[in-house]
Amino acid sequence: MNALFASDNVTSACPEVMDAVINANSGISESYGEDEWSSRLKEKLSDVFETNVEVFLTVSGTASNALALSALAPVYGKIYCHELSHINTDECGAPELFTGGAKLNPMRSSNGRINAKELDEIVRGSGNVHVTQPSVVSITQSCETGTVYQLDEIQEISKIAHKHKMSVHMDGARFANGLVSLGESPAEMTWKSGVDVLTLGGTKNGCLAAEAIIFFKPEMVGNFPFLHKRSGQLLSKMRFISSQLNAYVSNDVWIRNASHANAMAKKLSKGLNAFSNINLAYPTESNEVFVHLPRDVIDYLNNAGYDINEEELDGKAVRFVTAWNTDQNDITNLLDKLSQKYG
Amino acid sequence: MNALFASDNVTSACPEVMDAVINANSGISESYGEDEWSSRLKEKLSDVFETNVEVFLTVSGTASNALALSALAPVYGKIYCHELSHINTDECGAPELFTGGAKLNPMRSSNGRINAKELDEIVRGSGNVHVTQPSVVSITQSCETGTVYQLDEIQEISKIAHKHKMSVHMDGARFANGLVSLGESPAEMTWKSGVDVLTLGGTKNGCLAAEAIIFFKPEMVGNFPFLHKRSGQLLSKMRFISSQLNAYVSNDVWIRNASHANAMAKKLSKGLNAFSNINLAYPTESNEVFVHLPRDVIDYLNNAGYDINEEELDGKAVRFVTAWNTDQNDITNLLDKLSQKYG
Amino acid sequence: MNALFASDNVTSACPEVMDAVINANSGISESYGEDEWSSRLKEKLSDVFETNVEVFLTVSGTASNALALSALAPVYGKIYCHELSHINTDECGAPELFTGGAKLNPMRSSNGRINAKELDEIVRGSGNVHVTQPSVVSITQSCETGTVYQLDEIQEISKIAHKHKMSVHMDGARFANGLVSLGESPAEMTWKSGVDVLTLGGTKNGCLAAEAIIFFKPEMVGNFPFLHKRSGQLLSKMRFISSQLNAYVSNDVWIRNASHANAMAKKLSKGLNAFSNINLAYPTESNEVFVHLPRDVIDYLNNAGYDINEEELDGKAVRFVTAWNTDQNDITNLLDKLSQKYG
Amino acid sequence: MNALFASDNVTSACPEVMDAVINANSGISESYGEDEWSSRLKEKLSDVFETNVEVFLTVSGTASNALALSALAPVYGKIYCHELSHINTDECGAPELFTGGAKLNPMRSSNGRINAKELDEIVRGSGNVHVTQPSVVSITQSCETGTVYQLDEIQEISKIAHKHKMSVHMDGARFANGLVSLGESPAEMTWKSGVDVLTLGGTKNGCLAAEAIIFFKPEMVGNFPFLHKRSGQLLSKMRFISSQLNAYVSNDVWIRNASHANAMAKKLSKGLNAFSNINLAYPTESNEVFVHLPRDVIDYLNNAGYDINEEELDGKAVRFVTAWNTDQNDITNLLDKLSQKYG
Repeated sequence: MNALFASDNVTSACPEVMDAVINANSGISESYGEDEWSSRLKEKLSDVFETNVEVFLTVSGTASNALALSALAPVYGKIYCHELSHINTDECGAPELFTGGAKLNPMRSSNGRINAKELDEIVRGSGNVHVTQPSVVSITQSCETGTVYQLDEIQEISKIAHKHKMSVHMDGARFANGLVSLGESPAEMTWKSGVDVLTLGGTKNGCLAAEAIIFFKPEMVGNFPFLHKRSGQLLSKMRFISSQLNAYVSNDVWIRNASHANAMAKKLSKGLNAFSNINLAYPTESNEVFVHLPRDVIDYLNNAGYDINEEELDGKAVRFVTAWNTDQNDITNLLDKLSQKYG
Repeated sequence: MNALFASDNVTSACPEVMDAVINANSGISESYGEDEWSSRLKEKLSDVFETNVEVFLTVSGTASNALALSALAPVYGKIYCHELSHINTDECGAPELFTGGAKLNPMRSSNGRINAKELDEIVRGSGNVHVTQPSVVSITQSCETGTVYQLDEIQEISKIAHKHKMSVHMDGARFANGLVSLGESPAEMTWKSGVDVLTLGGTKNGCLAAEAIIFFKPEMVGNFPFLHKRSGQLLSKMRFISSQLNAYVSNDVWIRNASHANAMAKKLSKGLNAFSNINLAYPTESNEVFVHLPRDVIDYLNNAGYDINEEELDGKAVRFVTAWNTDQNDITNLLDKLSQKYG
Repeated sequence: MNALFASDNVTSACPEVMDAVINANSGISESYGEDEWSSRLKEKLSDVFETNVEVFLTVSGTASNALALSALAPVYGKIYCHELSHINTDECGAPELFTGGAKLNPMRSSNGRINAKELDEIVRGSGNVHVTQPSVVSITQSCETGTVYQLDEIQEISKIAHKHKMSVHMDGARFANGLVSLGESPAEMTWKSGVDVLTLGGTKNGCLAAEAIIFFKPEMVGNFPFLHKRSGQLLSKMRFISSQLNAYVSNDVWIRNASHANAMAKKLSKGLNAFSNINLAYPTESNEVFVHLPRDVIDYLNNAGYDINEEELDGKAVRFVTAWNTDQNDITNLLDKLSQKYG
Repeated sequence: MNALFASDNVTSACPEVMDAVINANSGISESYGEDEWSSRLKEKLSDVFETNVEVFLTVSGTASNALALSALAPVYGKIYCHELSHINTDECGAPELFTGGAKLNPMRSSNGRINAKELDEIVRGSGNVHVTQPSVVSITQSCETGTVYQLDEIQEISKIAHKHKMSVHMDGARFANGLVSLGESPAEMTWKSGVDVLTLGGTKNGCLAAEAIIFFKPEMVGNFPFLHKRSGQLLSKMRFISSQLNAYVSNDVWIRNASHANAMAKKLSKGLNAFSNINLAYPTESNEVFVHLPRDVIDYLNNAGYDINEEELDGKAVRFVTAWNTDQNDITNLLDKLSQKYG
């Protein structure tokens, strides 16, 4: 039970994805992404996003984000992001490594989401050789506080970014959860709202290890294939990654998985919020629930075998995460356990 | 048939490894390598190598090599390697990226293997601030020409390296093939002969995507966990990689797979060498066969549907690679096809 | 008159320093810092700082800071600094380049100075592989707002830094101005208050181009000579830099120069503050005066030939800088010009 | 006497250059290269090279070369150079640092000069993501063995480089010595022969510390100003560097200085070659003399107070260097000393 609600990456892969991997394990196939699974994935994602996309695969969100940023920021570039963003807090400097030293400019807008107006006010120094050059705005959908950017928020941020000649990157580690929450199409939530490059996560929502960097403007790919190879993320047997994502975005697997996770989060959020000594830190809009828990409650739950995650958001709140396969009973059990003492 | 003998990475995964992945896909598990599969792998590899090892996993040989070198070379370091080595020719600058700019010093010893005496003669500049500092010697076993370092060669190279205060790295992308060829134990071929860090490849010999960086001296690990995370190679669902390698080194799977590949290579090598217009470029000591093929033979085979690999070794020879599941009949067919025209 | 108060780097070199360069231009001398001027400088600085120091020279403050940080932070390190600090705003990513990707963590304490208590609260993540590792606290003396850290502030910050196993770096681009302002000894303002490494600036206060990286703990030098050479800052004819700094810290040259600059700033500050439409943005404690100027005043002064510097501190205030040779009459003229219109 | 012939960087600055520095030390001047000395230098160099050039200044040859390469090679680029080239042997990894990890491909053509035909044969891998991409050919004039590329050699190398879509960089640390040796114009020896970017050295031939990176095709400058600043080489009081180079290339100062140095080298070379136990390692074509000296001769000279330089060219020969102010008597004395024992 240990890591039960600690993260969505403690879960297994969903059956559709696992079957796809098993099916891909047959016969001889070109290596390094020249295989048919990879070709089909590119077509599939072009369908899903309703535009001709270019796709590069990786096996971790950290690699995906850092590589995507390296395509968009020069070595002397500046990347605007929220101070709570994964690229700023949880990737041990991978963005700096892969970009060759670009600087992250952390912002402190409320709710974990960047505010377009504030962004517009702080962007400065373009053309001044003393200043790292404004290059990218990176937003996370759904974001690190479990809330979700509304379409008009994404559009306004993109507009400001493009006005300042910057690109827009979306960290979509929990893209499907955001998608389900908004109820919009993948195209609407990305390029139609101004996103230039998306890192689409599969791992947290049912894959074994599969992430995609998606360029909505093929002309922005440039020399990216070399950066991709050089990062150690161009796998020889790429079919084993492509096949995961093929299954993931087919037949609504990702939507179904995310819908379940979000519904479970809602249930958990509502249950926790009912206790007088527990307060939601943020509204629950995807599959992450952030609450302020008194120390005695944390101790009580840890003693009960829950491995309470206090490390997220610079320790400002406690996190519970639900997943594609969260069992309703596990939520009931948790709430019951709390009721026994605090009900 | 296309890529039939082009590389061993065009093959599928072997059943034992695939089953292990399927079995790992169950229940909740700690992420980022804190899972039980990863713990068991560390124990298993300590058994296999007869010493207490530290293990870090990646999903590509390029990442493994580059990361291993980053643990051994400072940013101003110099890494001695053969000019045909994978790190020098096929990783698009990954070693330079991950080490932060260390310089590879390519050597041209015969047969693709570094010569200890030559190494001793060219190492210079230690302590001189103008000169990149001698830090690592990297050898490949089995090496890029398909030949194999003998134990005494490894021992002599290690001795020279250590005399000059350098570490010894072994690129073991085809470690098992070298092991079978030599008929020695994993311990003998590595740390007992002076190797400090091994990058053990699983992918080419039956895994989906699994490579291990193995430290034989735990005190050399230092801050490597941070370099590992920062490179994007610390997977959240690491059990899916650990489980592959667990199966791979258990029950002689890797040995059986490599033995078959090597035997098939021997057969192919012998058959090709029997043609008067075909000459072996190097003796066939593992699962790679390098031959000098006249242009008309290359054209003939390409027309027959073989995708002849002329890109290895800077184009100096044509490569055929056998694998854990190479079908004897495919070799017979190839030789028959040649006999029809050149017999 | 153009750049009159724009910065202290628009000034010429002082006679004592210029004479030293002329005197150094004689005969043959060992290159790359093996010359006698460099040896004498090391001794001289050891005297001045009352401890045995190690010294490395550069020709720009950007290089000095970035190199100093590269000695203190690993590639996955985190450097705490004020968001207005030169390393964060004006070095176009040099710290990221020279450290190999360390991350600056900008703080927003008031008056441009880091607050020890706030620092203690935000340092986190030590040992957690997902998080860049707390490595350095960098403070600027005198700081970017023209104010000065008091000794007890430096001591408290150092104490917190060391408690968290971090090093303390002082950016001393205007070190002498801070020294004069505080009225303390060089030793008191640095290592006796916990500073580990100082970048001592000479250029702004009377040198042509001369900066020193000073290690107060020789054991922290480690492999720094290689980083120094690799950065292109190990000059062959180093005597031309050493000789500048020798003259600079001898016979109270730096103190006299800074005293004059600070006095002129005080005069200018007092004069500006007397106008009802001009407000000091920060107290004037060294040789920089920051004021809030209405747009019409800025336009008026620009038309009068002053090249008003609006680019500092992210545009939050207008800057006037005095120097070692600022002419009292230039201040009077400026104030008169203002009086004519706003008096 | 110690370092007498050890290098040309042990010498003082010539009077014309020193006077220029003294003259520049007057009044207020825009910083960071916006001064009039820097503007005049750009015009002057455009005159000298008979084309409109873009100029960036540094204070060391290492910085110049590394920065120039960073303008021409992507992070995954490959730079062809001679294995004895300064960038490969004497810059402690600066090219790797400044380029962000580009790989130097050392060649072993005879006499220290790259051979065009050999270059053509080894360039490979363009477009192949596994291979660092051919980006730059770097040649040194005069080169590290003291010989000089003839115009047709430069032209052929440039032709091959451009055929493969690579740029041509010339390391001109001893540019004037090569110029005098060839008797050609600066334009002929550079862009008219296909050179794209030159690093022009002043330090070894009479400056204090002054090097210029010269772009012959302004459109290749691109974002270089940011790379320049980020490297710590954009000095605030740039006039002190610009003024040196202004004087250096004016009134034939550089030509006179180099002519003297070359003449002295010829004299020394002839004298040394007359001894039966001393052999020239390379023909003496500029201001460096390379000889094979028996161990007893080296010891004899060291005992006599000469600091014999055995470290160049990987220790393959002993180097004597003459300079703009080498005293004829010092050569006579050296030869006399040898005659006393070996005459």
